[in-house]
Amino acid sequence: MARRFEIGAAAESGGRRGKLHLPHGAVQTPVFMPVGAAATVKAVPQETLEQIGANGAGAELILANTYHLTLRPGHELIRRMGGLHRFMSWSRPLLTDSGGFQVFSLAKLRKVTEEGVEFRSHLDGSLHFFSPEHSMEVQIALGADVMMAFDECVETPATWQRTRDSMSLTHAWAMRSKEYFEAHKHEVPWAGQRVGESASQQVSDDSEYDRAKFEGKTQALFGIVQGGMYPDLRRESAERLVEMEFDGYAIGGLAVGEPPEVTREMIARTLEILPRDRPRYVMGVGYPDQIAEYARMGVDMMDCVLPTRAARHGLLFRAPEPGERQPVEDAIGEEESGFDRPGERWTGESVDSPSAIRMNIKRVEYAEDQRPIDPACACPVCRRYTRAYMRHLFLAREPLGATLNSIHNLAFYLDIMERVRRELAEI
Amino acid sequence: MARRFEIGAAAESGGRRGKLHLPHGAVQTPVFMPVGAAATVKAVPQETLEQIGANGAGAELILANTYHLTLRPGHELIRRMGGLHRFMSWSRPLLTDSGGFQVFSLAKLRKVTEEGVEFRSHLDGSLHFFSPEHSMEVQIALGADVMMAFDECVETPATWQRTRDSMSLTHAWAMRSKEYFEAHKHEVPWAGQRVGESASQQVSDDSEYDRAKFEGKTQALFGIVQGGMYPDLRRESAERLVEMEFDGYAIGGLAVGEPPEVTREMIARTLEILPRDRPRYVMGVGYPDQIAEYARMGVDMMDCVLPTRAARHGLLFRAPEPGERQPVEDAIGEEESGFDRPGERWTGESVDSPSAIRMNIKRVEYAEDQRPIDPACACPVCRRYTRAYMRHLFLAREPLGATLNSIHNLAFYLDIMERVRRELAEI
Repeated sequence: MARRFEIGAAAESGGRRGKLHLPHGAVQTPVFMPVGAAATVKAVPQETLEQIGANGAGAELILANTYHLTLRPGHELIRRMGGLHRFMSWSRPLLTDSGGFQVFSLAKLRKVTEEGVEFRSHLDGSLHFFSPEHSMEVQIALGADVMMAFDECVETPATWQRTRDSMSLTHAWAMRSKEYFEAHKHEVPWAGQRVGESASQQVSDDSEYDRAKFEGKTQALFGIVQGGMYPDLRRESAERLVEMEFDGYAIGGLAVGEPPEVTREMIARTLEILPRDRPRYVMGVGYPDQIAEYARMGVDMMDCVLPTRAARHGLLFRAPEPGERQPVEDAIGEEESGFDRPGERWTGESVDSPSAIRMNIKRVEYAEDQRPIDPACACPVCRRYTRAYMRHLFLAREPLGATLNSIHNLAFYLDIMERVRRELAEI
Repeated sequence: MARRFEIGAAAESGGRRGKLHLPHGAVQTPVFMPVGAAATVKAVPQETLEQIGANGAGAELILANTYHLTLRPGHELIRRMGGLHRFMSWSRPLLTDSGGFQVFSLAKLRKVTEEGVEFRSHLDGSLHFFSPEHSMEVQIALGADVMMAFDECVETPATWQRTRDSMSLTHAWAMRSKEYFEAHKHEVPWAGQRVGESASQQVSDDSEYDRAKFEGKTQALFGIVQGGMYPDLRRESAERLVEMEFDGYAIGGLAVGEPPEVTREMIARTLEILPRDRPRYVMGVGYPDQIAEYARMGVDMMDCVLPTRAARHGLLFRAPEPGERQPVEDAIGEEESGFDRPGERWTGESVDSPSAIRMNIKRVEYAEDQRPIDPACACPVCRRYTRAYMRHLFLAREPLGATLNSIHNLAFYLDIMERVRRELAEI
């Protein structure tokens, strides 16, 4: 394996503390990855992302969407700009998804064959084709530290037979992804770049080029376990992918509307099969309760649009006071949460002893509340601004509201993972 | 006079370097004030505003709109929160306008009598009434360091007689503003607050109260010169206001569609009358060329939505290269500039030897441009991001685009004023 993944002893629950060494830096695991779909974590400047979180360490790994970037500005443009790190001025590790999930949830008129998927852009209706080979080509052009095999995401609910057929296609595509990757992985655009240099330095300072920094380094490729809500298929999928030997393994196709017990069960069954020495990544989760729980079960990586998307809808997380329960009237539906894209829904949360209370900042009770969003939070937003002001910004639809809400929610998520990491380190 | 305004010797052009001492700090003049209409400079966090500008000094004085804040969240709420500084967590000087301009340009169905103006909110059609006394009451509740007398803004073009009648009403209102202010100025909410304390410190730390910081300090009240485009009326208005003795004098009713030569002429004629020992403020201007020119003529303070509003429309300013002219095809109309509110239009600019080149970031020529917006700019945006990335953010309608564009344009404006101040200091 090209990647080095140091892990500590597992807790009784299965959770483990780790450090994933990637070309653009090391990542402490378990890690939560903010989503920067279009080469930007919505409404949050990169310099802020580098600083949030309890210890000021910032986000160590963020995710970008292959589908979005292919359509706009285009992966060839990003390749010519030196890759995604340089394009968006983010010198820390990045992960790109395969585009599969968005093709199945966003694109119009998609047509799946064994060869790949033909689809129309949700932006302008233009016709595109994604195959495992093309997804790899795009992801190599983007140059994220971690890239994902191209997979099919089955609709939910789906029959066992339909799920199995889809899973088999995913396996064939995983194999083709790996073959293409192995043949082309040295084409990554940062061959010859220095770590952390900015575009303008690059332009002005070509003579001091130091190819050694990335010498011999390539991206990591993760396989994606599918199998829907069928434990036997999950097992089969995990076994099949492990035979192919990937640098890490993701569990895909979850958090798509199923009850949270089923999500947890599928994760648990799959973790049993996946090798302990590779990073294990659950895609697209979750609530604060859930990310902590899955990390304790042994999941090393997670990503979710929830903290930023909820933020833009005025939904903020804070630590509960002792014994506090989530007010039931604040339970929110999909519509209000802004989870309007198929497959990006979230379900299930603990009401009785939550890790987080969800605040709907537009509620009148916050109109004159001089406290910060979360008195226990040390993020730049909670250190400076009151609930009263945050409510005003949201009601006045001021762009600063989305920015401050997003910063706080992301800091809250990063803090949760930091606490779980400390917990696991103490074992 | 309650306010201390130190000024240096005037240049031949009339410009002068100054320092305006206000309750929340000293302001270097000539100064450009970013507009924070609804208690937020759109899309820019306060912590960023404190840091931009060539020497990292940040914005020393920002403007908030009385009309907007009265409607939402309401001045009584802000008073209960301890005033606008504490509400928005901005411990530096603030200025509020009188509400007059917005009432005349935004509100619906306004009805002007000698007593005041009845109008309907542009937000929800609710009925409101503004008189000089009410404007003062609101501005004292907000507690900005500088507040403005309530004035009528005459429509443009207007006849000499109509302009004179309106001006006379403004003078009567100025007198009533001053009388109300003198009787109520000690009601400002920050009596008893410490400088720079945050809301949460305030809550947790009441015992250490230090009333001495603002002891005996009150807001400053500026009068507003009107008189349309008639030099004799401008002269009369300035003389009349000077007799009333204000802490400073604004020149209102300009940059409302008249040719730039007329704006300049009205400013020049009015400056001749205004006392040299008081700050002189031209409201609602202007282009980079113009703010530099007016400052050199002896204007001490200016404000304008242009840098932030243009930013949200993808229009960025940068320093010209030697001999560079503004490309004519880039001249932009009102529609594109986003100056969609009556009276907030801007006109006139130098094409031959501009202080700034305007870039329309969506142009295809920037698609792969790895340079920063302005290679001569040291703002956090130009230090980190490329034109190619800024174009992508704008075209993808990403909120970070508006934020980064606004930060750069504001830094550009603050840098211009810093250069003019250095120029004037060297005389």
